[in-house]
Amino acid sequence: MSLNSWERKAQKGRDILEQSIPKQWMVPQSQLPLVTQKNVIDFPRQSGLLSERELMITGLSATELVGEMGKGILTAEEVVIAFIKRSVIGQQLLNFATEFLADEAIARARELDQHYKRTGKLVGPLHGVPISVKEHIGFKNKTCNTGYVAWIDNVTTEDAHLLRLLANAGAVFHVRTNQPQSLMHLCCSNNITGTTLNPHNRTLTPGGSSGGEGASVGFKCAPLGIGTDIGGSIRCPAAFCGGYGFRPTAMRNPMAGIEVACIGQETIHGVVGPMGSSSIEDLELFQKAVLDQEPWEDETSLMPVPWKSVTATRDMTVAIMWDDGCVRPHPPITRALRMAKEKLLAAGIKVVDWEPYKHQRGWEIISSLYYPDGAALQRQMLRESGEPARPLTEWAFSYSRPIPLTHSEAWVLQHERDLYRDEYQALLKRRGVDFILSPANPAAAAVMGESHYWNYTAIWNMTDMPAAIFPSGLTVDPDLDALTAQDKKYIPRNEVDEREWNKYQSPQRYESAPIALQIAGRHFKDEETLAAAKLVEEIIKGDTKSSKL
Amino acid sequence: MSLNSWERKAQKGRDILEQSIPKQWMVPQSQLPLVTQKNVIDFPRQSGLLSERELMITGLSATELVGEMGKGILTAEEVVIAFIKRSVIGQQLLNFATEFLADEAIARARELDQHYKRTGKLVGPLHGVPISVKEHIGFKNKTCNTGYVAWIDNVTTEDAHLLRLLANAGAVFHVRTNQPQSLMHLCCSNNITGTTLNPHNRTLTPGGSSGGEGASVGFKCAPLGIGTDIGGSIRCPAAFCGGYGFRPTAMRNPMAGIEVACIGQETIHGVVGPMGSSSIEDLELFQKAVLDQEPWEDETSLMPVPWKSVTATRDMTVAIMWDDGCVRPHPPITRALRMAKEKLLAAGIKVVDWEPYKHQRGWEIISSLYYPDGAALQRQMLRESGEPARPLTEWAFSYSRPIPLTHSEAWVLQHERDLYRDEYQALLKRRGVDFILSPANPAAAAVMGESHYWNYTAIWNMTDMPAAIFPSGLTVDPDLDALTAQDKKYIPRNEVDEREWNKYQSPQRYESAPIALQIAGRHFKDEETLAAAKLVEEIIKGDTKSSKL
Repeated sequence: MSLNSWERKAQKGRDILEQSIPKQWMVPQSQLPLVTQKNVIDFPRQSGLLSERELMITGLSATELVGEMGKGILTAEEVVIAFIKRSVIGQQLLNFATEFLADEAIARARELDQHYKRTGKLVGPLHGVPISVKEHIGFKNKTCNTGYVAWIDNVTTEDAHLLRLLANAGAVFHVRTNQPQSLMHLCCSNNITGTTLNPHNRTLTPGGSSGGEGASVGFKCAPLGIGTDIGGSIRCPAAFCGGYGFRPTAMRNPMAGIEVACIGQETIHGVVGPMGSSSIEDLELFQKAVLDQEPWEDETSLMPVPWKSVTATRDMTVAIMWDDGCVRPHPPITRALRMAKEKLLAAGIKVVDWEPYKHQRGWEIISSLYYPDGAALQRQMLRESGEPARPLTEWAFSYSRPIPLTHSEAWVLQHERDLYRDEYQALLKRRGVDFILSPANPAAAAVMGESHYWNYTAIWNMTDMPAAIFPSGLTVDPDLDALTAQDKKYIPRNEVDEREWNKYQSPQRYESAPIALQIAGRHFKDEETLAAAKLVEEIIKGDTKSSKL
Repeated sequence: MSLNSWERKAQKGRDILEQSIPKQWMVPQSQLPLVTQKNVIDFPRQSGLLSERELMITGLSATELVGEMGKGILTAEEVVIAFIKRSVIGQQLLNFATEFLADEAIARARELDQHYKRTGKLVGPLHGVPISVKEHIGFKNKTCNTGYVAWIDNVTTEDAHLLRLLANAGAVFHVRTNQPQSLMHLCCSNNITGTTLNPHNRTLTPGGSSGGEGASVGFKCAPLGIGTDIGGSIRCPAAFCGGYGFRPTAMRNPMAGIEVACIGQETIHGVVGPMGSSSIEDLELFQKAVLDQEPWEDETSLMPVPWKSVTATRDMTVAIMWDDGCVRPHPPITRALRMAKEKLLAAGIKVVDWEPYKHQRGWEIISSLYYPDGAALQRQMLRESGEPARPLTEWAFSYSRPIPLTHSEAWVLQHERDLYRDEYQALLKRRGVDFILSPANPAAAAVMGESHYWNYTAIWNMTDMPAAIFPSGLTVDPDLDALTAQDKKYIPRNEVDEREWNKYQSPQRYESAPIALQIAGRHFKDEETLAAAKLVEEIIKGDTKSSKL
């Protein structure tokens, strides 16, 4: 049977991936777990494929790795090789990569080791840290398809600005990662390299759109990764995969060289930010390494706001948003929030409830502004190659009206967007709230293809508030998270609420999914938000394992 | 003859103005100069209508006024009365106002005086400083027509954010000022309150769109005024009227409550900024008073960038842009630049020539982005009332294509805009240039209705660079500025160049027009740009009067 033209093009993308995988580290099929095995998070240890030293290395945070390399205890070369080996296993289990960069990464690591040997000094604050990179962040002379078959031959002429800065700081890029068609699913499948799986439960999605990154940091294929976020695309996969993620205030991190079909669109600003396997501290390390290089001096769209070092104290007010007033979170999420509340109160933090402010209105504005052109440009991308739209692509496109907004209509919405953001900021101040602790999603992690509700994350894109994800330490537990008699009596407020609530037919569907929490801070209080996330996580994790709230 | 409906509406605007003029200070018709008298700049002194003390007061800068009030030498009441009296004369000669706020201003001044008497302290850094305000900057419970008859009954429900901050700092608003229909002429006439004249030569325009403000500060009706600028609308009238003006980097000064038909449009960001009668120092005073109040805490579109105090040193490189590569400046402008170069060199400043970078391309991008909707919304504003479009309104609308840009087309231009700004920034660095000294316009001041070429100012909107206007101290002099034999041989590069050059048929057309200079700095270097403007002006004015370059 002859392949359609789009399938031939898509095959090119698979060939790039296939040829890039370092074959020497591939696991023979016979040693892989059965495809029916859902939870593969412990496979690297259980399989014996990685040495104890490699397991130790891949278990360290970026901050710890840099520390060990700075003491000469680890070399950059062994670090990157350990993560590449783990990435190869991850690829075989989760299909999270679009291209391995093994040779370049190892060569760069050797250079770093030579520099260290010669000078006794690290190159920079990210010396030797392997970083995985979402595919649409461009590398010089590499293809960049952004999840569209039409762009399978699109070659980027320069490294993205962010990559240059990270490289200056010593980072090593070892693997590029998967994203959904259109970059607008909170799920991760496309017609090129297919569907990425969640390492905690392979019937679940790793989330999206930075789903390959979610799997990467969740499976510890990299201590740090780079995602992008316009409605939750960093935070959702970080949450679903048990990792860390940070959406900075827009226009702080450099965006130049990140490829998207709708380049120049600014009705809603996408952001790029760090994801991590191990700690909030690593996200701070990333942010500081980037912003200390004053990227606004070259990329003039950015705000000239230096990164400050901030440490949080317990003298803060955290508001808990139990429910956004639109869609009720599933029981495991509520359990994690209850646990968090108890721990925070016990630690002397002031905790109040957060009454959400017109989140439905917020969603209407932001979702209308994603595609002011009625998704015409995105549909054109599909037509160009002839590839079919995936269901969640249609889902995202359906946010827009079929007919493009006029410019005037878009301006009205842009003005409302600004007013809404101002109102949210004023409300935080009036209520004396510093941070909002909330779910990242109604579900701990969506079942594959079911990631339909975005507004626990998109609301902070709408208000342009910095927001961080960290794991609560809890996972979905069928014993603890069964629907109670009261839960069974819940009458949904609307169709969307009903749809999302009905997905939670049984906790077994979500078994082993990590339960994340999201903390959002005031506009431009990025440093404070990460510092608060760190403190809140420390407090919550104090004795999480014994908690059975 | 019965009036058309739009004329009846427009009459309402004239009634507001008429009723607001404090009649007790109006000059009897018989004492006014003949309408054929072009230059009326010295009328307040020559006429004997103002006392010596009032002439002294209205001759002071804002900084000096605050100083005198702080010492108890002047009262806020006598200050504001002096400026109101001068404004009434200005109105009779130049038609620059849309509404006087005499009673409120005097009442507020009395409050300030009482505060000072009670506490011995000033209310803030702008204590008692009378400030004139461009009409489309909204006052609570006052109409705000933005130059359109359709909005003659549009009542603003709140003071603009900027006005609230200035009032906190002690400012007193005594007069609202004229603007052109559509706000998009570098001239100043509309179908409501008519045409504003240039105090130095009433056959010339005061410029626009902040033309009422230009006349206000040029005639010293206020030491400080507030203009807005999306293509030169602060700088052009400051230049044409012999005043000072500053276009800050976008999103520093608060914009909320400034009324425009296309609210929410952000393809090109308009800015609001200070204009002044007397000094760059006053512009700094204004900026500091506003930004010290951290407006970004309430208006979250703004950048959280505090105002720094900066003093310029002679260790800087100033590049002179003699010509933008598109339209040759008229001889008086070139004379002023030559004088400036000589003085700067003599003062030990490093001076180089500035080779303009694709200014035609810059203009194509910015002019296409003014009306991505093909000016549909603006035309709708005209249709709503039935008022006719004025010639310069059609001129501005003609920048757009007749058919609206698609969103995709606008995004491409927005991306090009960002790249162009980045390229300009990179070029400044590569050439080691700190500031660019240039004309503000091809003409010293355009003949009424002839203000067609914007790109000596719009280019810095395009690159979002801060830019200040100050008077060179020179005025157009028919003896010095006659076309030379060489000038007469000039072969224009294109039709636009020819059109602008041909306007300079004889220096007599521009007699007495002040010759301004413009200094632009790097993106976000607002403080440095004002500091440099101050130093450059000091150097140039050192012995200007004896200069006959």
